[in-house]
Amino acid sequence: MNARTLEQWIPDIKESLKASTSTDFQRIIDEFLPYDLARIHSQLSDMEQARFLQFLNEEQLADMIQEMEHDQQIDVLGRLDQEKTALILDLMDNDDLAILLDELSQEQKEELMRGMRDEESQFVQNIMKFPPETAGRIMTNRYVWIPQHYTVSDVVQKLKAFVSIAETINYLYVIDQERKLVGVVSYRALILAEPGETIVEIMNGRVLSVPVDADQEEVAQLIQKYDLVAIPVVEADGTLVGIITVDDILDVIVREADEDIQKMNATGGKSIDFHTKAVNAAARRLPWLILLLFIGLISGTIISVFEQTLEQVVALAFFMPMIAGMTGNTGTQSLAVIIRGLATKELSRPVVVRLLARELKVGIMIGVICGIFIAVIAYIWQGNLYLGLVVGSSLIATLIVGTMAGTVIPLILFKLRVDPAVASGPLITTINDILSLIIYFGIATLFLSYL
Amino acid sequence: MNARTLEQWIPDIKESLKASTSTDFQRIIDEFLPYDLARIHSQLSDMEQARFLQFLNEEQLADMIQEMEHDQQIDVLGRLDQEKTALILDLMDNDDLAILLDELSQEQKEELMRGMRDEESQFVQNIMKFPPETAGRIMTNRYVWIPQHYTVSDVVQKLKAFVSIAETINYLYVIDQERKLVGVVSYRALILAEPGETIVEIMNGRVLSVPVDADQEEVAQLIQKYDLVAIPVVEADGTLVGIITVDDILDVIVREADEDIQKMNATGGKSIDFHTKAVNAAARRLPWLILLLFIGLISGTIISVFEQTLEQVVALAFFMPMIAGMTGNTGTQSLAVIIRGLATKELSRPVVVRLLARELKVGIMIGVICGIFIAVIAYIWQGNLYLGLVVGSSLIATLIVGTMAGTVIPLILFKLRVDPAVASGPLITTINDILSLIIYFGIATLFLSYL
Repeated sequence: MNARTLEQWIPDIKESLKASTSTDFQRIIDEFLPYDLARIHSQLSDMEQARFLQFLNEEQLADMIQEMEHDQQIDVLGRLDQEKTALILDLMDNDDLAILLDELSQEQKEELMRGMRDEESQFVQNIMKFPPETAGRIMTNRYVWIPQHYTVSDVVQKLKAFVSIAETINYLYVIDQERKLVGVVSYRALILAEPGETIVEIMNGRVLSVPVDADQEEVAQLIQKYDLVAIPVVEADGTLVGIITVDDILDVIVREADEDIQKMNATGGKSIDFHTKAVNAAARRLPWLILLLFIGLISGTIISVFEQTLEQVVALAFFMPMIAGMTGNTGTQSLAVIIRGLATKELSRPVVVRLLARELKVGIMIGVICGIFIAVIAYIWQGNLYLGLVVGSSLIATLIVGTMAGTVIPLILFKLRVDPAVASGPLITTINDILSLIIYFGIATLFLSYL
Repeated sequence: MNARTLEQWIPDIKESLKASTSTDFQRIIDEFLPYDLARIHSQLSDMEQARFLQFLNEEQLADMIQEMEHDQQIDVLGRLDQEKTALILDLMDNDDLAILLDELSQEQKEELMRGMRDEESQFVQNIMKFPPETAGRIMTNRYVWIPQHYTVSDVVQKLKAFVSIAETINYLYVIDQERKLVGVVSYRALILAEPGETIVEIMNGRVLSVPVDADQEEVAQLIQKYDLVAIPVVEADGTLVGIITVDDILDVIVREADEDIQKMNATGGKSIDFHTKAVNAAARRLPWLILLLFIGLISGTIISVFEQTLEQVVALAFFMPMIAGMTGNTGTQSLAVIIRGLATKELSRPVVVRLLARELKVGIMIGVICGIFIAVIAYIWQGNLYLGLVVGSSLIATLIVGTMAGTVIPLILFKLRVDPAVASGPLITTINDILSLIIYFGIATLFLSYL
């Protein structure tokens, strides 16, 4: 979106790597953003990469590494000496560093962290103790905190020292003598205040915060609802221990949405992306497919129970895929509404009652319309009025039942604190498959003498 | 997460509404965030709401209205006199205001906007001209721009005047005489600079921007990749016309994920949420269900082609739901990976080739494992070795074909610039249904003499 795209810069950068000194090179590279540095790095040859890493300063290296995939991160750190590595790890955001370290063995971790400043390595080891997907795990210590007795001009002094390491400067968090969070001051308020005012006078005492053990999805909801750029993280006694910034929350939201989709499509909890190896992708998909295989066999067993009916009227088999497919589909349609609703909204009793009533109405409407439709088609196709009536009335019943199953089951799972997305995609398709076959063959068997 | 929850404040607020003057009330309400004001408002009686609206100042009202649902917004604005309404609309973020106005009739719009400042109403009308889901539509004019010849101390002066209306203060955008965007200065850089330095000296000239007609999803990707808090919007000639902030992008990402899920589950483009009326929900779901009905009939027709095979070996019907179900499922598993991959990643030729190779391997692995498994089960259940072999080899073939279909079809749709999510959920299930029946009955018919 710039006059000159990144790709057009690459030849110049390669040239400058060959010809220039580190200082000349800095003049060119200075204005590139970290994500661009990572992209540039990936387009260089091995030799060029070595010089590139040598020419970048520690801050640029730390920022760039944060934007890389895990394999690249390890590769780059492996090319640097221990002293430089330690400096870079000190400069990295702790939450990103925790993710980097997380996938390494204990030995590799220690090897990398040797030489880091105590304070930094302590903090990282500390956040790695929190369970995955909690606030404690994604928080950073790159923020500005202010003792409550400071004046505005004290704060401005402190800021000059801290601003280069702070991840966000939108809010300054105010703490008391025991490091407990007591308020927040926005930069706005600070700029508009007089130098002599104290922080307590201009701070907002109603500061939103999250406990360290809060689920990252809850944190995301708070940040989204309140349009925040960051939120402080506190321990049970109110001690300020870190902040979570909106850029990490963006990643959380994208990942959670991916997970919802993959769970609904039965690829299991662990996510599969473009980089996952075939064996791993297959291994993650297999358990679900095997489960679905057994479930498919239950449908088969139901059909086998009605074998005599089917033998007498083979034409019943023609409508089986349509009825099972539509029942499954109306169920997952309802499910999709619930899953995403649960991800962003609160669920009160009146909301549930209204939702159930609505889905019942929806089920009846689509059932009656599709049922009449298929009855006519079946009659015309097979020339058998009773077959038409059996197929039509079955579809009405299965669509109503299927719609309700797609609504009720995820709500029950939610009440039981099972993540509804993980269990209900395949579960609902299956239940609806089985229900639709029982209803269809049940009705058909009842009217067998007319068929 | 505060010592006292919002609900615990409500009685005090009600009390204060009854007893106090506007000034006393302000002391209590001052520190509440806009989203909380909206929640408080919704918990008051009609009488209390009237006083509440009277006691809040224009800025609080504007902020609160931005956090409300559309119906509530109209309700609140309807209770205020025209002068106050105009003041509030002037203060609202233009992107939020555009959304509010968008659902009104031309008359209602004019009625509401009468009295607004020309500059503000012009800007809003301007952004409403851009197509939905583009950068121009979600941009705001609440940002700070700086002529390039300013010194640092000029900027600090200007800031004091502008900071109360700016939506984000992380970046100041630098423009030349023709209002063209030439750089960006972070607050960090500004705080660390000397008062006498000029902006050109400390600005970053490689400023990322998006064109007004960029798709909002592209904007979201840029903001996410580069970890930005805001991005400037420019016209084709580089003129700065607005900025897009990360809080709006959070909403975009959540909405796009919802849409992906709903499209994959065939509820169509228009989204259904907890508030959608039954008739509308049914109307949006029906077209897809009717389509699926016809598609289900195609499966029926295929079965009817193989009627003789089925009549001779009715047991073939027992395995039909399992084979069709698993083939459909492996297809949507692959689809889910592609859809979300496309939402966040770039698609180059090598990526596509690697992806196809991987999915082929995955298909073969899961096909062979599930195939052998079901062959054994079918043999044990039905006591017929050839039936076991037919079912097993069919499942191997259909799982490989189904996995590839789930990968190739969305990629082709993407190349053809059809949104792969909208067409491929039901499309892939259907194609896989049909393919699986043809393969299964085809193989069965070939070996009919042994069954």
